[in-house]
Amino acid sequence: MKKFLNDPASFVGESVHAFGLAHSDIVEVNSEPLFVKRSDSPVSGRVAVISGGGSGHEPLHAGFVGAGMLDAAVPGPVFTSPSPDPIEAATRAVDSGAGVLHIVKNYTGDVLNFETAAELADDVEITTVVVQDDVAVQDSLYTAGRRGVAGTILVEKIAGASAARGDDLATVTALAQRASDNVRSMGLALDSPVSPTTGEHSFDLGDDEVEIGIGIHGEPGRRRIALATSDELTDQLVDPILEDIKLSSGDKVVLLVNGMGATPDSELYLIYGQARKRLEAAGAEVARSLVGSYVTSLDMAGASVTVLKLDDELLALFDAPVRTAAWTQA
Amino acid sequence: MKKFLNDPASFVGESVHAFGLAHSDIVEVNSEPLFVKRSDSPVSGRVAVISGGGSGHEPLHAGFVGAGMLDAAVPGPVFTSPSPDPIEAATRAVDSGAGVLHIVKNYTGDVLNFETAAELADDVEITTVVVQDDVAVQDSLYTAGRRGVAGTILVEKIAGASAARGDDLATVTALAQRASDNVRSMGLALDSPVSPTTGEHSFDLGDDEVEIGIGIHGEPGRRRIALATSDELTDQLVDPILEDIKLSSGDKVVLLVNGMGATPDSELYLIYGQARKRLEAAGAEVARSLVGSYVTSLDMAGASVTVLKLDDELLALFDAPVRTAAWTQA
Repeated sequence: MKKFLNDPASFVGESVHAFGLAHSDIVEVNSEPLFVKRSDSPVSGRVAVISGGGSGHEPLHAGFVGAGMLDAAVPGPVFTSPSPDPIEAATRAVDSGAGVLHIVKNYTGDVLNFETAAELADDVEITTVVVQDDVAVQDSLYTAGRRGVAGTILVEKIAGASAARGDDLATVTALAQRASDNVRSMGLALDSPVSPTTGEHSFDLGDDEVEIGIGIHGEPGRRRIALATSDELTDQLVDPILEDIKLSSGDKVVLLVNGMGATPDSELYLIYGQARKRLEAAGAEVARSLVGSYVTSLDMAGASVTVLKLDDELLALFDAPVRTAAWTQA
Repeated sequence: MKKFLNDPASFVGESVHAFGLAHSDIVEVNSEPLFVKRSDSPVSGRVAVISGGGSGHEPLHAGFVGAGMLDAAVPGPVFTSPSPDPIEAATRAVDSGAGVLHIVKNYTGDVLNFETAAELADDVEITTVVVQDDVAVQDSLYTAGRRGVAGTILVEKIAGASAARGDDLATVTALAQRASDNVRSMGLALDSPVSPTTGEHSFDLGDDEVEIGIGIHGEPGRRRIALATSDELTDQLVDPILEDIKLSSGDKVVLLVNGMGATPDSELYLIYGQARKRLEAAGAEVARSLVGSYVTSLDMAGASVTVLKLDDELLALFDAPVRTAAWTQA
């Protein structure tokens, strides 16, 4: 294993603290327990939005803490849910009295630990939206039901924009749920990631094999196929999304092409080109686009396609200003 | 080789055209010859800033076309300079009559082809700044003198901000040159990139080897060493920069930690933490920070450290608004 690494045991803490130094204009880091908080939270009367989960998916989630998006992010160990303690502490740290929305990717550990944290902080008004955008498989290695993957950042964006304009907790929650209900993703791996804590590949893939429907922890997908052209691989991601989301002619969508870590932008744009063509052929209008490595799986080579079906309100919230380490728009 | 790839011969064109579709709010793509232009350029009276070079370094340069930065970017084939024709065409397309600054990374082919383009467009007022920020080696595989690497985006940012506030060509050029004179970089590779056009690794590195002083095309660096801790590797990058740039106590700097393609953000932040510690120990103040994959070498695993010594004017220009695909600040 060749990585930038000092000590596997301190990897996450070192990285998160350095993140805090690099972005001290936006965030502050709490050490014990570990969470990243927007410097100016809580704001009196404003609903707070929190997410979190295992590390190794950077910039998710800490990269999305800031004005117009998350109030706090709780990073667990690599590929491992954060325990209830830091989630509870982060919840309390950002609550202004207006309540806190927990956005949780659908993994058994995450769901359980956010639930426990909400019980521990039962004097805070807490709601939860569980994101399960991955159409690849029904149940999986760490999940009952569908997994939460790259679509999570779109739910976080919508919820953060709703909170920023002063919506109450019920409204922020309903809009996050609406975004979650309208987002679908599917990914594939060309190569397996290596964990800095174990030094091991998550799984083995043959020199000419592709795992279609991969999870962001290297969980098995639908099938393995032989390497094909970028357009053919993209179709394997778009087809199941189109089957599931049932777009009507004229529907506006956000198209997010997400790199899994080691895939260059130049390749992501190839995927974007074909995915866009397919969505347009299905009658949809690609109203907004994001192309980049937003929800990664360490240094996995691969990519995912995410489609969010928009209505006017979701589009306005998507377009609202945001200022975080990983996503800024005026 | 496992990549998202349709046809090696059309890889760059496909990718650049899809980039244009994804960012049609900012740029437009000219097909024959190939260049990316800011949609609203030229603007009467405003100096235009252009850069370009071989592809494979994305988001450099097209990702930095937009308000406050580049007016156009000219992508060549992978790791190969663009020919004079597209450079000339891009120059003419963005010139408002106020003149055009060419920002050129110091590679023999780039320097020659930008020079020829400037001769072909001799009715346009053109100035040139050659960026040579890489302290690793004096001459190299494709370079006489020092190579131009990640510091280039800081020169592009300063020049674009100067042009945006209405400075004339001599002033924009002088500020770009001042940024170029004050920026130093050094990089290392943990693993070699694979080219989509040749399917080959650029070079071979042993399982426990690191190439210190690597170029962004995999050109040889200073030496190969055995894998060490992240802090030790970071010191190998910071030491030569500090020897060269001669910081005084109280100097303000921009610290850019740049990923070469396949290195996760979480690892880049480890490098950032140690590089910052070293700069502070040298008496400098890290006034601004950038951490991410800005100037890549396809899917190379590795990173570089860049330090730009600031004065008040360079800091103000660094802080000016920018809106491009890869860098946005309000």
